Amino acid sequence: MAKKRKILKGVSQARKKDSQEALKALAEGIIDQIRKADFPSVTMPSRTTDNIYFDKKLKQYVLGGKVVRRTARNVTHLKPLTQLVWAGYIASTLLKENKTSTLRDVFYMAEGEGLAFEDQPESDRIITELESVIKHPREDFNIFPEERSAMFGNLEVEYTVPGYEGRRLNFTMNPDGIVIGPAVATSEFVDTDADKVIVIEKGAMFTRFVEEKAWKRYNALLIYTAGQAPRATRAIIRRLNVELKLPVYLFADADPWGLHICQVIISGSANAAHIPELVTPSAKWAGVYASDIVKYDLPSTKLNEQDIKRLQEIGKDPRYQSEPWKTEINKFFEIKKKAEQEAFSRYGLSFIVDKYLKSRLEELEG
Amino acid sequence: MAKKRKILKGVSQARKKDSQEALKALAEGIIDQIRKADFPSVTMPSRTTDNIYFDKKLKQYVLGGKVVRRTARNVTHLKPLTQLVWAGYIASTLLKENKTSTLRDVFYMAEGEGLAFEDQPESDRIITELESVIKHPREDFNIFPEERSAMFGNLEVEYTVPGYEGRRLNFTMNPDGIVIGPAVATSEFVDTDADKVIVIEKGAMFTRFVEEKAWKRYNALLIYTAGQAPRATRAIIRRLNVELKLPVYLFADADPWGLHICQVIISGSANAAHIPELVTPSAKWAGVYASDIVKYDLPSTKLNEQDIKRLQEIGKDPRYQSEPWKTEINKFFEIKKKAEQEAFSRYGLSFIVDKYLKSRLEELEG
Repeated sequence: MAKKRKILKGVSQARKKDSQEALKALAEGIIDQIRKADFPSVTMPSRTTDNIYFDKKLKQYVLGGKVVRRTARNVTHLKPLTQLVWAGYIASTLLKENKTSTLRDVFYMAEGEGLAFEDQPESDRIITELESVIKHPREDFNIFPEERSAMFGNLEVEYTVPGYEGRRLNFTMNPDGIVIGPAVATSEFVDTDADKVIVIEKGAMFTRFVEEKAWKRYNALLIYTAGQAPRATRAIIRRLNVELKLPVYLFADADPWGLHICQVIISGSANAAHIPELVTPSAKWAGVYASDIVKYDLPSTKLNEQDIKRLQEIGKDPRYQSEPWKTEINKFFEIKKKAEQEAFSRYGLSFIVDKYLKSRLEELEG
Repeated sequence: MAKKRKILKGVSQARKKDSQEALKALAEGIIDQIRKADFPSVTMPSRTTDNIYFDKKLKQYVLGGKVVRRTARNVTHLKPLTQLVWAGYIASTLLKENKTSTLRDVFYMAEGEGLAFEDQPESDRIITELESVIKHPREDFNIFPEERSAMFGNLEVEYTVPGYEGRRLNFTMNPDGIVIGPAVATSEFVDTDADKVIVIEKGAMFTRFVEEKAWKRYNALLIYTAGQAPRATRAIIRRLNVELKLPVYLFADADPWGLHICQVIISGSANAAHIPELVTPSAKWAGVYASDIVKYDLPSTKLNEQDIKRLQEIGKDPRYQSEPWKTEINKFFEIKKKAEQEAFSRYGLSFIVDKYLKSRLEELEG
């Protein structure tokens, strides 16, 4: 084992407890108002575009000071206020019963109770409001994404989910990876001797990094996102960065979609401006760069119309105004080509870990 | 532990060894012909549609007796014959070096060696030919799919991959699931007390089945396919069925796409008629049926044009001519509705495991 890290204890449990207390406070607020014969109301930060800012220093979207108030005094507010209170009740029940669910489940549960959500987007919106009211991401009240990703490396966690409390798992147990779902997302970190996190877009490339012992040689935890990283995975990446102080490096294909996968992990989206728990502003985009296509003479294909359109959008996006984004986006426009991570296989299967990863980590760490 | 099962030993290792011997035989055949100053040639089963049949008894596509011959005597054969021999060399190298790869890697490796594949479909076709020549699925020579799926339950395996030889893993280690990739796919089964396999389309529903202890209450291994099951997952499902004699039950959404996910696990595709190792003909489609939408009064949505078109295609497909497919496809046309697995959440989160799964398993086991 390398140097021992000081690991924060009980982080995950504390978050759930905080979340439950915030839900209780929301309910008590409503009850108090009713007891005082007031029309019940709830105040929350406004999430309209005129209240969302990109904070260059924090490298993430944040909300401004505007608030909105939902009050039973206003008849058009009655429905969303009722839905919000019901969502709070469901969240509290999920925490009490220790059950996880999804946005979709919530939509169907509402239907079972005769609650009139027009469609799932409406139900999703109410859950987002609940997040902004109690200031916790929905994972803290047991609403998890449908998608799954995976992790491998020298990390030991202790579960907090029912039936597994206190049981531990080491992430080197399975060379194909350990799934990141609700149980892993809510586990406590116990021990690691890794000194960095490497995030990879594709399953087969993740396996390549395991097989070529990238985790051992570069002392890294490996995370596989399966395309766009699910929220629970973005939360785990942040926790590894914040709780364990591990630097994070992001690898995806050299195309606008790969850039976006990395950027969302770094600075999130405008939609989640009310949830700082999902971003890792210090994470570094580590490739594949447009300039790598030239430098390594990678097999590539021509950017198509959709790619160009997407690059133009990205070029104007405030999240891409720093380096190396700016230079690399210009390079894409110059060479009009894209390449996949697997393109390095033209130099044999080991090249990407032996040479490319080594050289890129030296550049970024130096 | 329930009754002990007699478990076949060394199945995975034997497959790799067979595969390597078949590759050697292919190479020796070519060398022999050259030594005799013959034009080298390779004979393989024809994979054109006039040689592919659906075998109703076997419940799968099979190839007829027609063969094709690639010979260096014919100048138009020279390129594909050379590519086939090169693919055999790559396959043999992957096995010798104990490295896994993907179809995409193979395409790029070819580019590195100046081998002229027009595009990836051409390179994929050559790997499919190699499968049909040596009569092994490409996973047996270490070419794995990009996609990943997961498993949970009381199964113990022993790894055969480098660095993990002889190490064991129990699939109850992580409540979020253990990833099925090359290492799990090539592991040997050591022990289980499960008496069935339940396959589930979606990640969150898989977690629901773990949380509600479906695995314990119904003594089942749970597999999550993440949509269409990757080939390595279909191979594991078959192995659990053939090696461990476990019956397999398949759950997906009540729509034509869910039906297809289940059917591909049962009887494969015409494209893979040369590979019997990917089908599980005795696996049973266990829901969600069109008739369940009516019986359980499930929240549902109207079939759209695409759904109807797909159902019409499926209605004519030889794989769907038996029960319960025929009745349920008619029911879909009658009610013109579809539903998701999560729709059962209208009766609370436990209902799908407590009531629906229980009743369906009794029906199918009885």
